[in-house]
Amino acid sequence: MPGNSFGSLFRLTTFGESHGPAIGGVLDGCPAGLLLDTALVQDELDRRRPGSTPLGTARDEGDEVEFLSGLFEGRTQGTPIGFLIRNKDARSSDYEHLRDVYRPGHADLTWQAKYGVRDHRGGGRSSARETACRVVGGAIARQLLATYGIEVSAYVLQVGGIRTDVPAGQLRMKQRWSDPVRCPDPEASARMAALIEQVRSEGDSVGGVVACRVNGLPQGLGEPVFDRLEADLAKAMLGINATRGFQLGSGFSAAAMRGSEHNLLSQGGTLGGISDGSPLYFEVAFKPPSTIAKAQQAMTTSGEEVTLEAKGRHDPCVVPRAVPIVEAMSCLVLADHLLRQRTARA
Amino acid sequence: MPGNSFGSLFRLTTFGESHGPAIGGVLDGCPAGLLLDTALVQDELDRRRPGSTPLGTARDEGDEVEFLSGLFEGRTQGTPIGFLIRNKDARSSDYEHLRDVYRPGHADLTWQAKYGVRDHRGGGRSSARETACRVVGGAIARQLLATYGIEVSAYVLQVGGIRTDVPAGQLRMKQRWSDPVRCPDPEASARMAALIEQVRSEGDSVGGVVACRVNGLPQGLGEPVFDRLEADLAKAMLGINATRGFQLGSGFSAAAMRGSEHNLLSQGGTLGGISDGSPLYFEVAFKPPSTIAKAQQAMTTSGEEVTLEAKGRHDPCVVPRAVPIVEAMSCLVLADHLLRQRTARA
Amino acid sequence: MPGNSFGSLFRLTTFGESHGPAIGGVLDGCPAGLLLDTALVQDELDRRRPGSTPLGTARDEGDEVEFLSGLFEGRTQGTPIGFLIRNKDARSSDYEHLRDVYRPGHADLTWQAKYGVRDHRGGGRSSARETACRVVGGAIARQLLATYGIEVSAYVLQVGGIRTDVPAGQLRMKQRWSDPVRCPDPEASARMAALIEQVRSEGDSVGGVVACRVNGLPQGLGEPVFDRLEADLAKAMLGINATRGFQLGSGFSAAAMRGSEHNLLSQGGTLGGISDGSPLYFEVAFKPPSTIAKAQQAMTTSGEEVTLEAKGRHDPCVVPRAVPIVEAMSCLVLADHLLRQRTARA
Amino acid sequence: MPGNSFGSLFRLTTFGESHGPAIGGVLDGCPAGLLLDTALVQDELDRRRPGSTPLGTARDEGDEVEFLSGLFEGRTQGTPIGFLIRNKDARSSDYEHLRDVYRPGHADLTWQAKYGVRDHRGGGRSSARETACRVVGGAIARQLLATYGIEVSAYVLQVGGIRTDVPAGQLRMKQRWSDPVRCPDPEASARMAALIEQVRSEGDSVGGVVACRVNGLPQGLGEPVFDRLEADLAKAMLGINATRGFQLGSGFSAAAMRGSEHNLLSQGGTLGGISDGSPLYFEVAFKPPSTIAKAQQAMTTSGEEVTLEAKGRHDPCVVPRAVPIVEAMSCLVLADHLLRQRTARA
Repeated sequence: MPGNSFGSLFRLTTFGESHGPAIGGVLDGCPAGLLLDTALVQDELDRRRPGSTPLGTARDEGDEVEFLSGLFEGRTQGTPIGFLIRNKDARSSDYEHLRDVYRPGHADLTWQAKYGVRDHRGGGRSSARETACRVVGGAIARQLLATYGIEVSAYVLQVGGIRTDVPAGQLRMKQRWSDPVRCPDPEASARMAALIEQVRSEGDSVGGVVACRVNGLPQGLGEPVFDRLEADLAKAMLGINATRGFQLGSGFSAAAMRGSEHNLLSQGGTLGGISDGSPLYFEVAFKPPSTIAKAQQAMTTSGEEVTLEAKGRHDPCVVPRAVPIVEAMSCLVLADHLLRQRTARA
Repeated sequence: MPGNSFGSLFRLTTFGESHGPAIGGVLDGCPAGLLLDTALVQDELDRRRPGSTPLGTARDEGDEVEFLSGLFEGRTQGTPIGFLIRNKDARSSDYEHLRDVYRPGHADLTWQAKYGVRDHRGGGRSSARETACRVVGGAIARQLLATYGIEVSAYVLQVGGIRTDVPAGQLRMKQRWSDPVRCPDPEASARMAALIEQVRSEGDSVGGVVACRVNGLPQGLGEPVFDRLEADLAKAMLGINATRGFQLGSGFSAAAMRGSEHNLLSQGGTLGGISDGSPLYFEVAFKPPSTIAKAQQAMTTSGEEVTLEAKGRHDPCVVPRAVPIVEAMSCLVLADHLLRQRTARA
Repeated sequence: MPGNSFGSLFRLTTFGESHGPAIGGVLDGCPAGLLLDTALVQDELDRRRPGSTPLGTARDEGDEVEFLSGLFEGRTQGTPIGFLIRNKDARSSDYEHLRDVYRPGHADLTWQAKYGVRDHRGGGRSSARETACRVVGGAIARQLLATYGIEVSAYVLQVGGIRTDVPAGQLRMKQRWSDPVRCPDPEASARMAALIEQVRSEGDSVGGVVACRVNGLPQGLGEPVFDRLEADLAKAMLGINATRGFQLGSGFSAAAMRGSEHNLLSQGGTLGGISDGSPLYFEVAFKPPSTIAKAQQAMTTSGEEVTLEAKGRHDPCVVPRAVPIVEAMSCLVLADHLLRQRTARA
Repeated sequence: MPGNSFGSLFRLTTFGESHGPAIGGVLDGCPAGLLLDTALVQDELDRRRPGSTPLGTARDEGDEVEFLSGLFEGRTQGTPIGFLIRNKDARSSDYEHLRDVYRPGHADLTWQAKYGVRDHRGGGRSSARETACRVVGGAIARQLLATYGIEVSAYVLQVGGIRTDVPAGQLRMKQRWSDPVRCPDPEASARMAALIEQVRSEGDSVGGVVACRVNGLPQGLGEPVFDRLEADLAKAMLGINATRGFQLGSGFSAAAMRGSEHNLLSQGGTLGGISDGSPLYFEVAFKPPSTIAKAQQAMTTSGEEVTLEAKGRHDPCVVPRAVPIVEAMSCLVLADHLLRQRTARA
């Protein structure tokens, strides 16, 4: 089964390479009659573009989504919503020197091994550029969730060794989009920003953690036994470029706990894989970007070692830009389970 | 879409409640002509049953798998492999006092909220008993993987605060099934066993971490962009009862690293979601079991608070018994991707 | 994707070979809380067994369905309904002479070509015996449909050259199960029965047509553009052994009509692939059974020609026994679309 | 599950309404490394456009397909192939008078019943315009099939009461695209053309039958038990607008035959749902178009009767333009089964 679709009833299929004519997608299964604010969708897309924070790469892709179908007089029609985003800033020649090189930590080698062919320009489809389409799909999902009172909010919890320890209730969630790090703790954010700038100046990169909280989730979402809510969320998160881990609620720290202690904690929002009506909470780990300005050893397609220094423009830390993507994928999972739950009872 | 099937081409569907007549499953998509050693399948099943280690519950379910179809003269036929395991030790009356109570940390409340009905006996389908069927499916997958030279080995890495720090190459992997904790480091295992006994004597429970390593994996497995190998593994693992987290390779520790440092590490076995030919490595966190002998507050279906003391027989720590389940789910994911990869090239 | 599952939300997976230990299935996605009368399911199963009409084969398989899961205190639980039917009357030795022969008109050659292996006993999984599991699934679907006031009724329309021409309103539908041909026109039924007896005495076989009418169907079922209601029905019908064709409403006769004439007719129950609230009507053509007592030329697996005379016991005409199977598959399609329609609107 | 995707491994998803900005699709699962001649794809698309035969409507949609992804340096990349076709000739105002009217024989009523909303312009997504995207997907499939020596050829067999009776071997298949009726029997074609012109002059319409033959098909395609090759073909055909029936090989005429007679015939290319290596042959019935110039009674959305005379431009007979669509859907089914067969054996 091809791997470019996500969701069973609320189903997003994406296409597009970094340096092809366009990227885009089809959202099938969105219920009919939803008033869709396409300007809000564009707003969400703007949050993920490279130039959206002063800490990102200098590229300004200026992505504009064009809707091609599925909408009429402001409402969804129950028909598939096709959309596309033209690739404007495609300097393919920047990448000609990578045609015969496998960059370390990148998918170059494995795509070649898998398909026997490879579009070397900007990573082709393995580029994170593809996630823009997920943001579009997720933004539509969010508008459906809003009609149920469900709210999904992700933010940067950690950059390198710096982690916010402000309690959830005191985080300034509404201001996170105006914060350059997307961290709702101004004090921690300032330190994170300084770290990112330092890492950039050193020609290096740094990892981080994105947290996500969902409020307003009704009881009953999640499909035993394989499609538990956290199972589908974990898949969604590990399907984002550069992720290394997913944990629900107490996560890995639960391993060191006693039951008498753990039973008193929030279970992260699910019991037995089904939402329990309490806030859902999970965290996603991101590795530091592999592409760094520092010289690295790489291998050519013919097996020779070469030294590689990244040209082009690259993020020293992906987590600020990953926040809208984590939200988008969460919205897609929840919209899907919301529809699935409609068939649970006779 | 119903949630009781797993995999796209190598596809396991399971059924069965803890206290119904039987549990079982159908494995569809297993290629024809595979010599299947059904005694080996039974061996794997024996490893997960409650009585298999001295540290588990006293129940001895003595599960026996009966194959109903899909095999002829020792070989798979390309037709679905149906199988069942009778429920022998079903003392339903043990659970009558739970008919109107939602146990804390259990799926009782959420199943009721989802379906409007509930089989209260032993957790019904939310019981971990269901995972026996995954072990059967996984054991068949393993025999397919073996023909490709792929080997999947999980083990207990951590129990409570005790963690083995023996380097991977020095772990006694072959002896893990004779170790009561399923930990291939005898020294750590002894301390883990002592901790589990202590926790049991206190009427409490404790969490842990299972690690899994896959050797012999060819390059090219994993389907961009949503069905990355680690995305499907993460879903598989978070679909196991009591799991809290999944991490690949460096996992959450990558968040604190620099790129120049992280690029030198193993990437956990994939690049861009596709296997890179190096060993695959991931960890799975398990919470401490919610059912403990200590008295706990619970809620009845009519909203009253009651004090609950677990009768019956329960594991103080699930990780030793989770090892075969982690292996089984891993084998299912890998067999599926092995078949999917057959269609990658023209 | 494996081919032994049917339906997307109301999903039946079947397993089992003609001469293995058992056949069975898993029905996943049946909504929770449905009062299920399992005796009615057995009744439906009894209608399809070989000995159910005096015109069938002399085998009396006496199939008994055992439910293994998904039911508790008389109601469906939202969990998968597992069931099995033991193979009692399995005289495998009857088939030893067919181990190395490809019977003409049968699937022997093609299964060998597909899988490289083959269970030659009674056709293995290509035997129509497998359809008993569809009847079980369909009978559950019917009880769900009944709660919506939907009624599915198939009957024999034609045997060989004999066709009932009684108008729909005058057919004795309720008595069709006591009619040996399953034809609700006693006069035509008598002639059909005589034809079947004659064909049997000649050691030959004969084809026929089954018609199916659905009353009480609400408007709105069917999913544009590929999963139209008639598209899924056509697939369901051509997935039954020995079928040759499917036609909706006016069917092939529409090819010869003018629009001004055809617009005045019933459209068969759908417009644009979606149910229009009028009765659904379609017909299914069955070929004469390939196995006949007359000597036929066949080919061995090593390419030699041999003369084959059918031993064993075989139906001279399948349509009377096909009626419950056509109904079952129709019920499965409609239950699936009923659930799918629940997600059509925001 | 949403209904706008077709195929399991070779999977086409389409989007677009008749009078929206564009129609298009995503083909996911096309194997990597296929040399794709996009000019040939455009050629196939040209065959289906309204102005392609002198017998069609006067509209000349002049569809041009733009490929957006999945191709690099002339080869498929294993990544999804996104494409779109802009809607040029969208005179929406032509349809304003239909905003509150349900046209007889059209999907207006049923779409409204299903979704609660409706794009009334040109039938919205229920328009046959959507089939252009299937032709694009099918044309890519055909180039994959060609590498296996598989050739799919459909043609008009019957228009109204006129049917070619030239034996298959003597049909001028290669010239069918230059024949205005797409009938490879010049003598019958001339009579069909005259009938279509007569029907048009009468303000009426007429039905027909398209036949399809597949040569070069290897043994072994088709997935028992539900996804038989003919089952998937039947679904594909009944999923085309205006179709009424599907028959394989002897089809409905088999109902009147004896087994001794039928066993000597071609089985239509499959045995037990699996291709047998002989040519595949099936027929598809199309009803006469519902939109005719003659005045008809229609109903408004508020339940009043009105008299409707079709303005706009409409085909008096769809079968000539249906030929490329039947081929496209056949190619999609076969490409899918070709890939599925790759997983049949260990």
